[in-house]
Amino acid sequence: MKATRTVQKILSNYEADTPGVKANLCRMLMQGKLGGTGKMIILPVDQGFEHGPARSFAPNPAAYDPHYHFQLALDAGLNAYAAPLGMLEAGADTFAGQIPMILKANSANSLIPDEAPKDQAITASVDDALRIGASAIGFTIYPGSSQGLEMFEEISAMREEAAAKGVATVIWSYPRGEALDSAGETAADISAYAAQIAALLGAHIIKVKLSTDHLSLPAAKKVYEGEGIDISTQAARVADVMKSSFNGRRIVVFSGGSKKGADSVYDDARAIRDGGGNGSIIGRNTFQRERGEALAMLGKLIEIYKGKA
Amino acid sequence: MKATRTVQKILSNYEADTPGVKANLCRMLMQGKLGGTGKMIILPVDQGFEHGPARSFAPNPAAYDPHYHFQLALDAGLNAYAAPLGMLEAGADTFAGQIPMILKANSANSLIPDEAPKDQAITASVDDALRIGASAIGFTIYPGSSQGLEMFEEISAMREEAAAKGVATVIWSYPRGEALDSAGETAADISAYAAQIAALLGAHIIKVKLSTDHLSLPAAKKVYEGEGIDISTQAARVADVMKSSFNGRRIVVFSGGSKKGADSVYDDARAIRDGGGNGSIIGRNTFQRERGEALAMLGKLIEIYKGKA
Amino acid sequence: MKATRTVQKILSNYEADTPGVKANLCRMLMQGKLGGTGKMIILPVDQGFEHGPARSFAPNPAAYDPHYHFQLALDAGLNAYAAPLGMLEAGADTFAGQIPMILKANSANSLIPDEAPKDQAITASVDDALRIGASAIGFTIYPGSSQGLEMFEEISAMREEAAAKGVATVIWSYPRGEALDSAGETAADISAYAAQIAALLGAHIIKVKLSTDHLSLPAAKKVYEGEGIDISTQAARVADVMKSSFNGRRIVVFSGGSKKGADSVYDDARAIRDGGGNGSIIGRNTFQRERGEALAMLGKLIEIYKGKA
Amino acid sequence: MKATRTVQKILSNYEADTPGVKANLCRMLMQGKLGGTGKMIILPVDQGFEHGPARSFAPNPAAYDPHYHFQLALDAGLNAYAAPLGMLEAGADTFAGQIPMILKANSANSLIPDEAPKDQAITASVDDALRIGASAIGFTIYPGSSQGLEMFEEISAMREEAAAKGVATVIWSYPRGEALDSAGETAADISAYAAQIAALLGAHIIKVKLSTDHLSLPAAKKVYEGEGIDISTQAARVADVMKSSFNGRRIVVFSGGSKKGADSVYDDARAIRDGGGNGSIIGRNTFQRERGEALAMLGKLIEIYKGKA
Amino acid sequence: MKATRTVQKILSNYEADTPGVKANLCRMLMQGKLGGTGKMIILPVDQGFEHGPARSFAPNPAAYDPHYHFQLALDAGLNAYAAPLGMLEAGADTFAGQIPMILKANSANSLIPDEAPKDQAITASVDDALRIGASAIGFTIYPGSSQGLEMFEEISAMREEAAAKGVATVIWSYPRGEALDSAGETAADISAYAAQIAALLGAHIIKVKLSTDHLSLPAAKKVYEGEGIDISTQAARVADVMKSSFNGRRIVVFSGGSKKGADSVYDDARAIRDGGGNGSIIGRNTFQRERGEALAMLGKLIEIYKGKA
Repeated sequence: MKATRTVQKILSNYEADTPGVKANLCRMLMQGKLGGTGKMIILPVDQGFEHGPARSFAPNPAAYDPHYHFQLALDAGLNAYAAPLGMLEAGADTFAGQIPMILKANSANSLIPDEAPKDQAITASVDDALRIGASAIGFTIYPGSSQGLEMFEEISAMREEAAAKGVATVIWSYPRGEALDSAGETAADISAYAAQIAALLGAHIIKVKLSTDHLSLPAAKKVYEGEGIDISTQAARVADVMKSSFNGRRIVVFSGGSKKGADSVYDDARAIRDGGGNGSIIGRNTFQRERGEALAMLGKLIEIYKGKA
Repeated sequence: MKATRTVQKILSNYEADTPGVKANLCRMLMQGKLGGTGKMIILPVDQGFEHGPARSFAPNPAAYDPHYHFQLALDAGLNAYAAPLGMLEAGADTFAGQIPMILKANSANSLIPDEAPKDQAITASVDDALRIGASAIGFTIYPGSSQGLEMFEEISAMREEAAAKGVATVIWSYPRGEALDSAGETAADISAYAAQIAALLGAHIIKVKLSTDHLSLPAAKKVYEGEGIDISTQAARVADVMKSSFNGRRIVVFSGGSKKGADSVYDDARAIRDGGGNGSIIGRNTFQRERGEALAMLGKLIEIYKGKA
Repeated sequence: MKATRTVQKILSNYEADTPGVKANLCRMLMQGKLGGTGKMIILPVDQGFEHGPARSFAPNPAAYDPHYHFQLALDAGLNAYAAPLGMLEAGADTFAGQIPMILKANSANSLIPDEAPKDQAITASVDDALRIGASAIGFTIYPGSSQGLEMFEEISAMREEAAAKGVATVIWSYPRGEALDSAGETAADISAYAAQIAALLGAHIIKVKLSTDHLSLPAAKKVYEGEGIDISTQAARVADVMKSSFNGRRIVVFSGGSKKGADSVYDDARAIRDGGGNGSIIGRNTFQRERGEALAMLGKLIEIYKGKA
Repeated sequence: MKATRTVQKILSNYEADTPGVKANLCRMLMQGKLGGTGKMIILPVDQGFEHGPARSFAPNPAAYDPHYHFQLALDAGLNAYAAPLGMLEAGADTFAGQIPMILKANSANSLIPDEAPKDQAITASVDDALRIGASAIGFTIYPGSSQGLEMFEEISAMREEAAAKGVATVIWSYPRGEALDSAGETAADISAYAAQIAALLGAHIIKVKLSTDHLSLPAAKKVYEGEGIDISTQAARVADVMKSSFNGRRIVVFSGGSKKGADSVYDDARAIRDGGGNGSIIGRNTFQRERGEALAMLGKLIEIYKGKA
Repeated sequence: MKATRTVQKILSNYEADTPGVKANLCRMLMQGKLGGTGKMIILPVDQGFEHGPARSFAPNPAAYDPHYHFQLALDAGLNAYAAPLGMLEAGADTFAGQIPMILKANSANSLIPDEAPKDQAITASVDDALRIGASAIGFTIYPGSSQGLEMFEEISAMREEAAAKGVATVIWSYPRGEALDSAGETAADISAYAAQIAALLGAHIIKVKLSTDHLSLPAAKKVYEGEGIDISTQAARVADVMKSSFNGRRIVVFSGGSKKGADSVYDDARAIRDGGGNGSIIGRNTFQRERGEALAMLGKLIEIYKGKA
């Protein structure tokens, strides 16, 4: 499929990447109902690792089956499906070539002792991604953790290998750890900083959480207030994140967190769109709903990103 | 030997695996008296490492000899024999090709200082497995330990190498460590979570302990109760574990622990069978009994799994 | 471009280096308005990593865009532009071959927990430098930190690889950590020691901060006073650093720190020049000023290094 | 030299080993005055590392010279000589091919701070063993130490490499560390457990200390007493160790510790012989005696192992 | 140059070494005014790393220039010049082939926090030694430190690589760390032990400090006194070190420490000579003196080693 001008323009921002990486980015940008618009919706299903199977799938038991998620992403016309290795392997053949996959290459879980530093385990490799035909690897970093520097080193090395082998890199940049209190994790300044770090580490796609209007680092607060950076609305904060992602030269998708009301999900999407963000990465709010309901919600989100809702 | 339809169906769930890995899974599934039924009984003998030789073998001194266990697994018509490197090397030639071997690639022991984090040592490699002709590697993970993430990384790397070389991977997923109290180690929610983690790490065969009706993590307890997940019987809990193992797309075998009465062992097997589990991994309950008695017990278990007892 | 005698003489001090490394040093020394004089001004933009995007770029929002800095370095006639991987990749193609790049290969950030030892994460490789066409890698060491020895080992290994592949090495030698109080970090003796360590580690270009007339280590203080080493002026302290950099056999550039008045910046440059230093590495004082103002300041600095101001 | 039936039978127990490893085991078993009997005496000289030169060699100053030990082992008709790298290199050429060497590949020393975990440094490689013509590597493990699991991993990896290159592995299994009190280090149950661990790790020759009739682990004590395992005599305890070494399928040699009276040394050997052990590894009791006296003692030990004394 | 009989005899003690290593040892033994005598004087200049530039070079400012030391070693007729990588690279071409170089491959510094374990950073590689044409690598170990075992592992690995590539190894064996008090660092028993460890690690040339008549380890003290080992004079203690260095089969050079009176330096050399030591490694006592004075002192030392003073 011929890439649209919009997509070609986005790809041209990746000045140092090989055709292999660009092809995979293009594949994701041209897939599904948002294909060609430069907007993206990604379905991430790593909650079985993070929260355990019951908390993730019991609300909609069909979701225990790995095939369910491939089919959901495909039927809803999403851009890509992200999951840990075992989950993707369980459907890699049945759905080969039908929906771009992002191999989530590290994972945490709810059984880690509280006192352990915030960290994740690397549970898949770039060669695993090639073997199962994934378009990208996904990797979480925790800026703010005492393990943060080591996580940066891990993804730097893995990203270099991935890029050399034509696989794109998606970084989940989640501020967390000893340096941050709970409000700090989603503060506006921290969120923009998290996006900047992911961009500097060479992420092709950046995933951050939507932020609040809290400012956490005193030195940053002073600048935000002194320079009058607008963070009063969600859209303004999205715009600040995009500016911090090389002035919009990198694709950024936003996540909304735990299951909530549909209107709230739609409002988030409108803010992402209006702030210039590239889209949503939305898991529990879809697969924990009954399939028909989830498809309807995803259809509405697509309309929002198309500017029609 | 031509694989049965049942076995072919099981193998088809391993969508991303090479013919080499599938051939080894097939070999184990087609071996012995349960061959072709999709059910399995595995004999594991790593207790010499875990508990020392006297506690393991003195009750039945013939078991000090490594050949004893090969012969027992063979004569009883089991599917596979699992043991550490030295144990397998001591009979690898005499029993070559007669009984599938699972090389237990990491081990703990009873001389580790109490205050040390729960961990195991890697004591064999994938190339060792190839060299002695093993069909699979076995690896223990301790979700709940401060070393858990590192153990996940170890098996992820080893599994990748094994799969590339056509060797299957069996993960012993044993919740243990600072994050868990004693009841938590065998809680229903934790057991299902442990199975899910093993599946996500890419295990071809998952080994978990039979669980109790205790629920350990508050957030999980809320969901189990809210969604009305049945954990009132052993069979129901086995079914929950199977659902958590990619909705039954992965082979799961269950262990019963220390030596106990025969009726209790049979009841466990019936619950595994009725809950849809694939079988038993049973060590001390067989090799600590006199050989004739052990063969009789294993014969009865086979009948149970065939639905005849 | 034919190298001037001055540049050839400087290059001849690198007695054990390959033509590849010398070519890259030559490229930097012959670039821009100071080309051929043996003096250098380098634009470093790693503050987005170190301090976050708002603190770095909000004072001059055009600087959020990675292209801005390439263009500024080029238009001002500087010798090289230094930044982390993502930042350079974002302009590597547009500005290919127009301005020598220094790939900053490790970075710290403001989200590291206070109690963590002073350290940086390696976020790029020598092969990354080759791939994007950089002339050198940049690497920060923290003499005085409990991680100092490990950082020395990291740059020693990376420098060896870089040199073998024809890439030059710039070491940011920043005393910091448990062994030093705040005054010690910029003490005259410590600064000279930091330069000496970088030289011994094999740096081709050494970056240190301008120092104060404080003396920190008692044993050093005794020698400075006993031997009457002049540290009364900035120029004298620059001269002491040059002497400590193999008696001037290594290129040394000095940094001035946070944004300050223009006159102060000029005074620093005159002291560097008069003490025999090779030049300035100047970031926030340029890119946080409006572009026209920054170009004027850089023009003036060039005049100073040419001895005309 | 044609291997005797006894030796051939011993070699046949090593079912998974290459001809290269078996050849080296054969070389040691066929060497010297016990050649062909299946019994062995090994001279170990690593005390210079463990206790320092004065404590080791001052009682018999001729022993400061590395050649002394080669000559002693040769003249006494022993099976092999074990020492650290430097010690073997100092005579490797003069005595090439005359006496099998065991390269002790890790070592501790008496200058390690008390509070450090019990551990040793790896001070030689498998390739070193090949280069100097050694028949085996020797490696100490400390079950009971917080470093135990790591030492197991080290020897597992080194053993794999050694076996692939035709070099045999001797494991010194010395219970020591936080998990054990002083009586526990030589308790009967611990000693048998130590032998079992070495066997499971794939040792070709196991070295343990002679034990006492103390039982250390409560769970093991219960079994020893409940099953009536005889540990009342040294010979009975040796027999228990042999049973724990794959029912005698592995060669086990016993050490006696610090210098003591000759009669005590002879009693030890008779117990080893009567319990079915393969022989002695005896250092300070020989080389700290004057050469003539040492040769006489070794001659007597050989007679004992031949059943003539 | 044809090697003298004395040198050939020394070389014959290195029984397991390649011609490449022997050639480099020969080069050092045949160099300069002591060439062929079996005695050596080595100039070490790593104090810039250890103590900083001012403390090292300010007393004789000409010494700030790396060329100064090459020239001094050459003009004085010494056997070799030892320094860290940067220092050697700065003169490697100018003095190529004129004076054997020892590349000091690890270094400590005075900015390491006090509470950190005693350790050094590896700052150069064996390939660096080959690239600059050095005859040997130099490496410091700290027996007595909690990092001691790790340092032993580092030099064991590096020595193996060096030997395989024909580069000799010099070990600076400096007892230091938690296990030792200040008197212990230079105690007679510790010094002999340090030499023994270096020899066992495979050092070709051993460097230890001259010791005092203090005895530190109680178990060693008992033996020294019980066996009547003479440590009453410096020469007797040197003889004890030589005995502990494989009965003189290894080259040992002694260092004297900080700058002191010339007579004291001469007395040290006579004791080294009379005790059978191979020579001196002497830094600050030469390069901190004015060049003429240093040359005179070195001339006198050469006369002493020749037995003429």
